[in-house]
Formats: sequence, C-alpha cells, structure tokens
Amino acid sequence: MPESIPVDSVGLVTPQTHHFDQPLTLDCGRVLAQYDLIYETYGELNAAADNAILICHALSGDHHAAGYHSMDERKPGWWDSAIGPGKPIDTNRFFVVSLNNLGGCKGSTGPNTINPDTGKLWGPDFPIVTVRDWVESQARLANILGITQWAAVIGGSLGGMQVLQWAIDYPERLRHAVVIAAAPNLTAQNIAFNEVVRQALRSDPGFHEGRYAEHGVVPAHGLKIARMLGHITYLSDDAMRKKFGRELREGKISFGFDVEFQVESYLRYQGESFVDRFDANTYLLMTKALDYFDPAAAHGGDLSAALAHVQARFLVVSFTSDWRFAPERSREIVKALLDGDKPVSYAEVEAHHGHDAFLIPIPHYFDVFHSYMALIAQEVSP
Amino acid sequence: MPESIPVDSVGLVTPQTHHFDQPLTLDCGRVLAQYDLIYETYGELNAAADNAILICHALSGDHHAAGYHSMDERKPGWWDSAIGPGKPIDTNRFFVVSLNNLGGCKGSTGPNTINPDTGKLWGPDFPIVTVRDWVESQARLANILGITQWAAVIGGSLGGMQVLQWAIDYPERLRHAVVIAAAPNLTAQNIAFNEVVRQALRSDPGFHEGRYAEHGVVPAHGLKIARMLGHITYLSDDAMRKKFGRELREGKISFGFDVEFQVESYLRYQGESFVDRFDANTYLLMTKALDYFDPAAAHGGDLSAALAHVQARFLVVSFTSDWRFAPERSREIVKALLDGDKPVSYAEVEAHHGHDAFLIPIPHYFDVFHSYMALIAQEVSP
Repeated sequence: MPESIPVDSVGLVTPQTHHFDQPLTLDCGRVLAQYDLIYETYGELNAAADNAILICHALSGDHHAAGYHSMDERKPGWWDSAIGPGKPIDTNRFFVVSLNNLGGCKGSTGPNTINPDTGKLWGPDFPIVTVRDWVESQARLANILGITQWAAVIGGSLGGMQVLQWAIDYPERLRHAVVIAAAPNLTAQNIAFNEVVRQALRSDPGFHEGRYAEHGVVPAHGLKIARMLGHITYLSDDAMRKKFGRELREGKISFGFDVEFQVESYLRYQGESFVDRFDANTYLLMTKALDYFDPAAAHGGDLSAALAHVQARFLVVSFTSDWRFAPERSREIVKALLDGDKPVSYAEVEAHHGHDAFLIPIPHYFDVFHSYMALIAQEVSP
Repeated sequence: MPESIPVDSVGLVTPQTHHFDQPLTLDCGRVLAQYDLIYETYGELNAAADNAILICHALSGDHHAAGYHSMDERKPGWWDSAIGPGKPIDTNRFFVVSLNNLGGCKGSTGPNTINPDTGKLWGPDFPIVTVRDWVESQARLANILGITQWAAVIGGSLGGMQVLQWAIDYPERLRHAVVIAAAPNLTAQNIAFNEVVRQALRSDPGFHEGRYAEHGVVPAHGLKIARMLGHITYLSDDAMRKKFGRELREGKISFGFDVEFQVESYLRYQGESFVDRFDANTYLLMTKALDYFDPAAAHGGDLSAALAHVQARFLVVSFTSDWRFAPERSREIVKALLDGDKPVSYAEVEAHHGHDAFLIPIPHYFDVFHSYMALIAQEVSP
C-alpha cells in the first residue's frame, strides 16, 4: 500500500467495462456474438480528440497499466514507470487508454467468463485469438471512445506486435507506432519455449482438459513451471549473475532438494505467486497468439511488403541483453521500414536486464522515449 | 540396426561390471558400503599400461560411448563419432575406458538398483553424489584395471567438469586433460534451468516422492518436460532456426493445441522417447552434481588457486554458439591455467550447433581434437 500517492502518479483509477453487441469474426473463423472489454484511462481526451494513446499489453499484462485501484494496493499498474504526469507517456498531455485483451483473465471476455450460449464458463472452448483479432477489438473500443486516430499506439514485447499490426491494419488510424522489445515473429526457439510451457500446463493433472474451474482446482504446478521458465527468458544471463550469482540461501550446501541457491528461491516465489493471479487457459491463448504472429507470412516472408502501406512514424527500441526478442529482431523491423522509405527512429539500449528491460526506467531508454513522446505532444491540439 | 558394422567402428562391445566392496565416503557425508560400476573398454591396454584414456559422460550419457551392443542396435554409442579406429580417440593406439557414473540408471549403482540395507530399490534414498565422488570412484576403477596414470581424461559438458576435478584431485594420475564445452561452475541461469527441471519432475503426480517404481509408474510428464527444456538449451537459437524455422507440420495453422510447428513435433518426440530410457531420480542427481560443482569455491572463488597443483597438460575446446556453457566460461578455465603457468591449448570453434556441438564431428573441432590426440599417442609406449 502506498503511504500516499506519489505526485507523478496518475493516482486512483477505476476500470470501466464496455459491452460490445456487434459480432466479431475472429481469424480462426469463429464468431464472438458479444463480448466485454475492460479498460482504464489516464489523462483527459482533448476537444480535437487527437491526444489519445493506446497501450497494448504483453503476455501476462492487463488493463491496469498505471496508478492504483485503491489505497490498499501494494503496487501500482504494470507500466507506472512510464505513464503519469511528467513521465514519458505524460498524462498532462495525453489521454491514455489501456485495456485487457480478449481472451484475458482480468475482466475482458475470456476463458474465465461466462459463455452466453451455454451459461457456463468458456474455459478451453474460448476461441484462439490472434494479434489481428485484438487490434480489431481495440479499434472498436476506439470508436466507442470517439477516437478516430491515435496519437500513438505503444507496446512492449507481445504489445509491440500489436502496434505493428495496428500500423498494418489501420494505417490511417495512428500517427505514431512505438514498438519496444518486440519482433516481427517468433523464432523456433521462442516457439519451443512456448511449447514447453503448454506441455507443463496441459499435462498438469489439475488441468482437466482446461475445465479445471468446474473441478474447483487450478493447474498450479503447470502455472508455476510456466512462470519460472518465463522468468528465465525475461532476464538475461548477466542480470541473473548480478542479481543472484551462485549465492546460497543458507550459506552452505544441504545435499537435498529444498531451496539452496538464491536464484531457486526467487524463481519458486515468482512461480507460486503467479498461480493466484493468472489463468492457465489465458496463458495458453497468449502463447498461441505469439506463435501465430507473422505479418510477413502473407507476403512470402517479405516484411517490407507487409509494411508497404503503413503511414505511422515509428520508434523502435531494443535492449542489448534481451535474448527473448534480441536487437537483431528489432533491426529486421527497422530495415523493413527503411526499405520501404518509412520514417523510423531506432534506439538499441545498452542494458543488462534482458527482456524485462522494457518495464524498467533505464536512463538512456527513458530519455529516448521521453523525447520521442514530447515530439508527439507538440503535434496535438491544446 | 547397422546393415554391417562400419570399418571405423570399435564393433560389437560387451559391458562389464565390477563390484566394489571397499566403502566409499561421499561428499555429502554418507557412505556407500558397496557398489557396482558398469563400463566398456575399446582397444587394448599396452604392456606399459600407459595408453589408457578415460571418457567421462555428461548428464544423460552412460558407459556405452562407442560401437554396438548387438547387430540389432539402431544407433552406436553416444560418442561413436570420436572413438574408433582412426578417429580422434584412436582405438588402434589407445585403450579407452567408459563407465556409467554412480547414481546413473544404466547399470552402475544408483536409484534404480537395490539398496542392500533394505533389499528395496534405492529410489530417492540414494545419496546425492558430486563430481568429486565420481572421480574417486573412477580412480578406484582405474586401480582395478591396472591403470596408474591415464594418458588422458576426456569429457564434454558435465564430463568436462569431471576432467577438471581429476586434474585437481589426482594431479599425478593423468598426463592430459581434455575439457570440451564445459565451465568451471554453473551460472545462475544454468541453475535456474535445472531448478525448473527439478520442479517439473518432482511435481509430476507420478513422482510419488521419488518412489514411483514402487507404484509401478514413471513421472512421464516431468521427464518429457525436462528433456524438452534440455534440448532447447543444447541447441542454439541459430541451429533451431536452420533446422526448423517457422515451418508448419501440416503447412497451415490449425488454431488448436495439437502439434503445428515442426519444432514442436521434434521436441515432443525427444521428450517422449526420453521417458523410456531415463530415470527421474538419476536426472535429479545429475542436476545437483552440476549445481554443486565449483572447485574455486574452496579457494575464495580463485580458480587459479584451485588449479595450482594440476600437472596435466590441457586441451580446452568451446563452441561459439554454445549458450549453455558459453566460450567465455571455457576462457575462464584457460585464463586460470595460464595465470598459474600451466600448459594449455585452447580452440574456440565456430559452430552454429549450440552445446550439442561437442557430440558432432565438426571439421575444425575434430582437426584440433585429432591433432592433440595424435601428440598424446606419440608419447605412449608401443
């Protein structure tokens, strides 16, 4: 719980939910007849409605990107470092929208909400959603909010993939695209890690073919393993060395299978705390959205062709120690944009934090981010 | 099954077992009153008994390093590429010894053998063994075979760690130490991967606190996940890209959780075939031996001090794309040896295969290996 709300915080925020009645045909061919999206907004939409920013979340993210839901909340939203008065995404200048994506588990329609056709939880029957589906649902939310064109769409990791898809699907609806620690598609290694996660979740005897809620259980071991493995790939080898090294928790080896090294303790804690706050079916859907994302595929693998019609100006940021979405993957995006004579700024930030760097206010990163956002702010109406 | 035994193969081989009655006090403080070691030999020990080579195996390896157990055997031993007539470890010149380590599951005393005190399987009661324990048991095997001094002790990965330990514990008992794709200890990231594997094995409901054999089951899901994860870390990102890319098994996306990408198919196969040929308790012991290995720890982290009394000449080999035991880890060994004015040859081999490269006859690697072994051969008696 914050003793008091910091002055550079957006403060107390209350999520809102919009119910959509217009059916949404998904990439997989199935139709969502109706659905809810939960979202938060920070700052004020100006009269011209040209100062709106969309935040797209990553695998385990949600709509709660900044501020506090109550004075009892221990930690602020997941990107509070970047969103607030005077921060890179300055809420004195911008109207910021952040939603929980379809298939999520934090309030938008997804596996742990009721399927109106059956009156039961969707569970594993929830359709597989893609980055394109999310962009479509986000565009409809923009319509509801009276936002014809975003000043910028911004996201890191899987969020950055949504930004790319926005620029491709709705070239006229965003002026800037900020793509952080992302990639134009997953590598075989990325897919392989996702597949291990899926096996861990689906082979947990508590999974019950995805109908664990009906059995009153959760696949806790699978979720724990998924999160532990995720954490290894979010941190760099170097970050782990700096943070934990070979330090022993009790100072000496015990010759047993209880926690011995600090890094084991950290991972177990991360894994266990995840079980209470995330849903296995949602996790599975997120891994599939990641695996499938590949806008160049429809153009014979030519990313430049996929980006031929984008109109947004781009800021692309990568981090040197990010081995999940390495800098060379960001450079593929930059090269494809340059090959098409598209305006793009690129920052490759020296950082030892690994993929997680995108959430951390590293000075070089935030200087670039802040400057770029200040340029965007100059373009918006008063 | 080989249609015929290749001419550069050691041919048909038969493992032998030696029963040791002399108690072995382990690092953990417990005592093995008696134990068996299973081993194979290739080539002939010369009259001077100075042409003997010890092969140390890695995590999932065993005594069957070369040749075939029968004409029905589909594949030869795990390091057949390197061991045989005319190969780097030339069985026309050398007498090669390869054993299954204590705690293993292929014939040496370990969790799936009978504890003489109880008449039941050891299972999880088998003591945690260390690299030092293995070296001690290997030294006793050398005594039995009449080998006072090895011409060389050779190993890759965890096997390379045993080579280092040999040079430290028995400086006068080996003339050469060949350390391939190894490290002086595990990084926090390495330990973290091992911990995920342990969690996957131990949380499998088939694990039964390690007493799965008594229940007539195996923790198949845990073993599968462990092996899948292992394979990701044995291959480089680049090797996976070259081998699988984003290729789809059926040519198109199915929007489901069956195998879609070729890399998923490969990993599932590797994981499933491992279940039938490896033991979960052994796997757990191997990960602990890896985690604990740290010869510099007893010298305040000073590896050069740990190696101060080694007498062996060293060949150290690393592979550029090995991210499990990266070249910089091998260079730590080389530097520590050079700081102590110890003779060491070092080859950093350009290879995209990742950690698995140590098993692959890459020309540059095998040229170096062959040349170094030829020099050793010149030193041995006719």
